[in-house]
Amino acid sequence: MSELRKDPIVGRWVIISTERGKRPADFIHRERLKPSKLGHLCPFCEGNEDKTPPEIYALRNPDTRPNSPGWQVRVVANKFPALRLGGDLGRREVGMFDMMNGIGAHEVIIESPDHGKTLTDFDLPHLKKVLSVYKERSLDLKKNQRLKYILLFKNYGQDAGASLEHSHSQLIATSIIPKRIKEKLQGAKRYFDYKQRCIFCDIIHQEIDYGVRIIGVSHDFVAIAPFAARFPFEVWILPRRHSPDFDRSSNEELRGLGKILRSILRRLSRVLNNPSYNFVLHVAPSRSPRRGYWQTIDKDYHWHLEIMPRIVKTGGFEWGTGFYINPTPPEETATYLRELQE
Amino acid sequence: MSELRKDPIVGRWVIISTERGKRPADFIHRERLKPSKLGHLCPFCEGNEDKTPPEIYALRNPDTRPNSPGWQVRVVANKFPALRLGGDLGRREVGMFDMMNGIGAHEVIIESPDHGKTLTDFDLPHLKKVLSVYKERSLDLKKNQRLKYILLFKNYGQDAGASLEHSHSQLIATSIIPKRIKEKLQGAKRYFDYKQRCIFCDIIHQEIDYGVRIIGVSHDFVAIAPFAARFPFEVWILPRRHSPDFDRSSNEELRGLGKILRSILRRLSRVLNNPSYNFVLHVAPSRSPRRGYWQTIDKDYHWHLEIMPRIVKTGGFEWGTGFYINPTPPEETATYLRELQE
Repeated sequence: MSELRKDPIVGRWVIISTERGKRPADFIHRERLKPSKLGHLCPFCEGNEDKTPPEIYALRNPDTRPNSPGWQVRVVANKFPALRLGGDLGRREVGMFDMMNGIGAHEVIIESPDHGKTLTDFDLPHLKKVLSVYKERSLDLKKNQRLKYILLFKNYGQDAGASLEHSHSQLIATSIIPKRIKEKLQGAKRYFDYKQRCIFCDIIHQEIDYGVRIIGVSHDFVAIAPFAARFPFEVWILPRRHSPDFDRSSNEELRGLGKILRSILRRLSRVLNNPSYNFVLHVAPSRSPRRGYWQTIDKDYHWHLEIMPRIVKTGGFEWGTGFYINPTPPEETATYLRELQE
Repeated sequence: MSELRKDPIVGRWVIISTERGKRPADFIHRERLKPSKLGHLCPFCEGNEDKTPPEIYALRNPDTRPNSPGWQVRVVANKFPALRLGGDLGRREVGMFDMMNGIGAHEVIIESPDHGKTLTDFDLPHLKKVLSVYKERSLDLKKNQRLKYILLFKNYGQDAGASLEHSHSQLIATSIIPKRIKEKLQGAKRYFDYKQRCIFCDIIHQEIDYGVRIIGVSHDFVAIAPFAARFPFEVWILPRRHSPDFDRSSNEELRGLGKILRSILRRLSRVLNNPSYNFVLHVAPSRSPRRGYWQTIDKDYHWHLEIMPRIVKTGGFEWGTGFYINPTPPEETATYLRELQE
């Protein structure tokens, strides 16, 4: 079983994933992305359903059975899960250190049965299906009160940490609130306590007013290059309607998100020649009942999606300090992307 | 001039480095490490002193002149500095956002005139010279009261962000205390306020007692695989004598550090086949006078060096949450490295 261990100095939890237990030789001969011609051996392709752990959820044709062909979007457990649902939390100490069992969930959302297609290729109805599966998995896992945070994210391309080429997203649900999420929650609450307004709503209003960091505005969403972007061509997509929870999005909002997300990813692909990227859905944690610093969370937190192209290497400065050097001003990112057709 | 910009939600500063101002095409055709055979064109090689910005400091033969051959270790300004010394801080606002000018220093420490040698090849007297140059540059820059933090680090290999092959380290001095450093300082102070002891001293004692995460112990230093390591084969080197400041190390301590550092780097190189790595010196900030949360810093903070092999890709989960999945338990890291001869 994996372990969660806490750094005694800064309080950061890490997952020590014994499931994956790598020996030095595994790092020397690194995994490469499986090339397309090996698609027929790909565990995520239609017809290879027996090569994955059992299906957790799928959108599939009415006359088909689980773990067989006939699906559009399919969710399975990660074959090498960083966290598992079974067992107890087992909080304990090792001398001055704290640890607990690696309780949680680690799922893979296979976005399409077709090996050759990725998010930028899907038609809008299919993209909306993928996003509705994100929503369903989030709502389902929130029923488990031990899971405090549900993170949906995508690694695209080898430089972004993807190990399989077939288009997929991931979900990790954790029994603690991760450090950077907690910092965001605390920052948003601090602003709300002072101003009685949502900091993200204020950013949206100001950025639409200024215009220089705006990449696109639709009925429901806005895409901006954030003022203090860590990476070149970093883009945030925010819903214009205040809401802490992605999984309370309406069907219309999911369609709107699919449209602006595909548009941004297509433009990034054109301007940066199909770059590797990560995207991450930043949402409020599961909370029931609302108490402690959850008290005002419905008003103070605002979900959003962060897209980070992985086109520069991070060095000792960034890893050592959490301080980033970004060679592309966000205003230039916005100009490049705004002027481009999809 | 570069700008420092503050993320309004989490309070993290980033450097928007207009000096480097990269266009999309610069990311597509990425810089590759210059191969060894191009050594005669390398700006860091002896004889090419006119290809770098002017010398800031050097250890050189007594009868030689600055910016000419005859040196052993040479310090120059970074050709594309992220920060510069001149001008005023210019703290200002942009609507709800905060920013200031990119004041600071960005230096390159060329560790040897010989293109073909790196830290693992140096003899111990030369390694001690490199570390004494770290110390001299730190002491010199501390005279500038605007520079709050001096970070010494090394990027080795392309996956660690190195853009030139010739062995070198870097120094970045900043007018603010970077986020992760502040978290370490606060964590160490919190522990001291509660226990009246240094957390790093306690970790050293406990780890020597337990033994399982110890890689090596010398008269002056200890090398451990940290309990909550973020990365496989992450190693920390800590001085056994309590001190917040690397730059107050004695000559004997610099020799001892050189010895254990070379030993660890050689073992990492053997077990992981010459991996890319970053290392970072974590020291206390410049402080004069001692006040605020500096009051107990002489007792609560303890300098150390963190070595992070760059052998796994970080994905959306890590970037999105600050939560890491490490597939190699630190106890295994320690076993592999402890059992190895250099």
